[in-house]
Amino acid sequence: MSRDSLHLLASALCEDSRPMPNGAFAAWFDDRARQHRFVIEPVPFDRLERWRFDPRTGGLSHESGRFFSVDGLRVRQESPRPGEWDQPILHQPEIGILGFLVKRIDGVLHFLAQAKMEPGNINYIQISPTVQATRSNYMRIHQGRSPHYLEYFLDRSRGRVLVDSLQSEQGSRFFRKLNRNIVVETTEEVAVREDFCWLTLGQILRLLRQDNVVNMDARTVLSCIPLDADEASGAGDAEHCVARIERAAGLETGRLARPTSELEAALMDTLTRPVDSPAYAADLRWLAGRRFLAAQTVEPVRPRDMRGWQVTDSVIRHEQGRMFEVIGVRVEASNREVPAWYQPIVRPLSVGLMTYFLRVRQGRAELLVQAKLEPGNADVLEIGPTVQCFPQDENPDDPPAYLAEALDPSFGRCWVDTLQSEEGGRFFRENNHNRIVQVDPDWADPPDENCRWISIHHLKHMVLHSHLLNVEARCLMASLGVGAMRQAN
Amino acid sequence: MSRDSLHLLASALCEDSRPMPNGAFAAWFDDRARQHRFVIEPVPFDRLERWRFDPRTGGLSHESGRFFSVDGLRVRQESPRPGEWDQPILHQPEIGILGFLVKRIDGVLHFLAQAKMEPGNINYIQISPTVQATRSNYMRIHQGRSPHYLEYFLDRSRGRVLVDSLQSEQGSRFFRKLNRNIVVETTEEVAVREDFCWLTLGQILRLLRQDNVVNMDARTVLSCIPLDADEASGAGDAEHCVARIERAAGLETGRLARPTSELEAALMDTLTRPVDSPAYAADLRWLAGRRFLAAQTVEPVRPRDMRGWQVTDSVIRHEQGRMFEVIGVRVEASNREVPAWYQPIVRPLSVGLMTYFLRVRQGRAELLVQAKLEPGNADVLEIGPTVQCFPQDENPDDPPAYLAEALDPSFGRCWVDTLQSEEGGRFFRENNHNRIVQVDPDWADPPDENCRWISIHHLKHMVLHSHLLNVEARCLMASLGVGAMRQAN
Repeated sequence: MSRDSLHLLASALCEDSRPMPNGAFAAWFDDRARQHRFVIEPVPFDRLERWRFDPRTGGLSHESGRFFSVDGLRVRQESPRPGEWDQPILHQPEIGILGFLVKRIDGVLHFLAQAKMEPGNINYIQISPTVQATRSNYMRIHQGRSPHYLEYFLDRSRGRVLVDSLQSEQGSRFFRKLNRNIVVETTEEVAVREDFCWLTLGQILRLLRQDNVVNMDARTVLSCIPLDADEASGAGDAEHCVARIERAAGLETGRLARPTSELEAALMDTLTRPVDSPAYAADLRWLAGRRFLAAQTVEPVRPRDMRGWQVTDSVIRHEQGRMFEVIGVRVEASNREVPAWYQPIVRPLSVGLMTYFLRVRQGRAELLVQAKLEPGNADVLEIGPTVQCFPQDENPDDPPAYLAEALDPSFGRCWVDTLQSEEGGRFFRENNHNRIVQVDPDWADPPDENCRWISIHHLKHMVLHSHLLNVEARCLMASLGVGAMRQAN
Repeated sequence: MSRDSLHLLASALCEDSRPMPNGAFAAWFDDRARQHRFVIEPVPFDRLERWRFDPRTGGLSHESGRFFSVDGLRVRQESPRPGEWDQPILHQPEIGILGFLVKRIDGVLHFLAQAKMEPGNINYIQISPTVQATRSNYMRIHQGRSPHYLEYFLDRSRGRVLVDSLQSEQGSRFFRKLNRNIVVETTEEVAVREDFCWLTLGQILRLLRQDNVVNMDARTVLSCIPLDADEASGAGDAEHCVARIERAAGLETGRLARPTSELEAALMDTLTRPVDSPAYAADLRWLAGRRFLAAQTVEPVRPRDMRGWQVTDSVIRHEQGRMFEVIGVRVEASNREVPAWYQPIVRPLSVGLMTYFLRVRQGRAELLVQAKLEPGNADVLEIGPTVQCFPQDENPDDPPAYLAEALDPSFGRCWVDTLQSEEGGRFFRENNHNRIVQVDPDWADPPDENCRWISIHHLKHMVLHSHLLNVEARCLMASLGVGAMRQAN
């Protein structure tokens, strides 16, 4: 029997004995959707129960003062390009928890995933972290029940923390929002509740190849998992080695993925490489320089005073139909903490585009990233993917760097090409292209001055810190991995 | 001739040929002070020309809207310890530049230091970076001349950037202030102007052993110099090796410092070690956890409405004499961009204490740090030294962790013990104890839950990033180095 056949056999055996065999997932997931009733209907603002335009701030907010509010922002920018505009912005000052509970089952790390309904989700339910909770949720402001498994993330004695970092959300829509991205490993017996199932990292990465199955919150937590952390892997050298390759490869079996191309070999090598301090320091100097040059000020403005925007009885919208609009919805869901609620929600008006250009140079896999200035960023700008925009909103006479190439289907070799939602609790049926395109090693070198080629292992190290990679950069990075990309082309 | 004698001879020869021989510095520095006339006198607020209490915000601000303003802040804290208080806070939204111009002279990196007058400085002049400028300075809002050498920091073609990071200032007094800490290496001929001189890193570190000679701005930039950056060292392996040891050792000659104790050996080893990603990730998880637990909200309040504070015609002060007061001063200085000006300034009411406890364990040098919550921090809390407080303001019934040990002169072995000023442009004759005390390897293990032992090379890596180490932690870290600490005990 050849080594290849042995490998296939081992994988197949392994698949059968997993808590959720690959072949069984689709039926389980469809069943989850069928088990629950979801009703989402638009309602005018004056029928949004417990929400009102606050007479003091002018913003649309909940009468408890909790959850979030829709306010206005006036943005003035001198550099890199001058401009001035008003826009709605979501304030949600509480730090939310996005937490995966994990457990070794037959020696392989499994993630307790939830089939979770969010009102903005395409398909209503998507795979989410074990817990996805705002402070309002877990303080039970809405009088509902406490989210399942929350205790593992609040009580440190219940497990070992493998990932813990505070990360931003969309700086174009949220004002300085932070979430705690956390992974806790337990050795306890865990009762698997309805709507939950154990999936390996490889299985989740495989689901990421499909449109709109793995939600944004799950993607951002996955992006924070260190690939070289022997602490995270749990112990001795052999196990460490298997675990890091497993993660880098996106395999679920603990067995080695054999790279089948130069790209895969480079990816595996780069993802498991330790940080090269001088080169990493140079990456951060570039970012500091871009931050220093950026000159943008923001100040609050009452939504009804936003220039270029209309506030009607049922929508806050741009007069030229740009960016997004804010509407109100009534939501009924049989599997959430409360059976029905009202809330405002942001509805994008076009399909966005998130693209990484990737290259392999000197055996190392690098991504082309940009210093992305957005008004809601706590630190002025964060690192974004090569292209991150709504092409329909861009000025064709002055397009963002690399947009033309990103829109050209014959450009480069595409490894990842899916449609993904953003946070379904705040964004209504958002559906953005997520693409990773490999380019010639010498193309775009030197890059546009606001962009930089950064080695993937440096980006993985950056994500240990806050305010370095924006949510678009992180979520798209979650798709990187040898096995994860293998079927895309 | 023994190796030791050779070493001494080489050092001595080297000293003589340096731009500023060690023996000549004191005379030059005294001469600088004598060459200039400085007059600082307190004036009541209504005689602070061009400053007034803004009718809109209630804050004390400049009529140009530039420089900075003194506003009020209301702080509410639930965790880690509940409390509520009002206090003045300085707003200075512009990112300042703290820049050292450096150049290799006879193969050794030299720093262009400035003997700079600041109104709050003890002794009036202290050694500062080459350029220390706010945007108001370099946009010349005050109609003065542009700061010397500024062009090297604004025009990237003039040199190679070795350090570039945005770092915070005192979160207890500034609202989210950031400075660009930057080091630029030039190969051009540089005319050395009056009040400037070339010093090696070792010479500056030696001056740090004295009270109030090296200012805070110089100390924070020094703390950002990477010790393992071969990019920073400039080139090939041999030079790299010399340069990293030179920096780690605080030597000025490019020759090896020979460690004379277990501490020195551990320091040199730790300072030049590459980052250990899993252990580093664990340090950051600790910090994220502390940030998540901290619950503090701040909101602006008009200074005259601050509870517990009085605003008289010449001072803003706490009714119980706590924290600090704000006064107005008139300043005359013959060597500044403008010959005379008025400004508010913060006057501390007691002597502060900044202390690191240091230990050597398994050959590695570690510092005991705390997660320090301060209302002006952009990111809620940053890492501070073991003890950072004004002992006089502390509640004796509930003192900060480790304060008792830090105040006990017989505790541990003290390697650094100096008095240092903080930013002399904003703080009037501040004078804080700066101490580094070595403790037994097993003392305080595990530490207080808000504190953590962190390896020094991880702290050096953290300082590449923003919002991780507060200015007190950074400045005290600047004193670390084999040669720098040798004469302290």
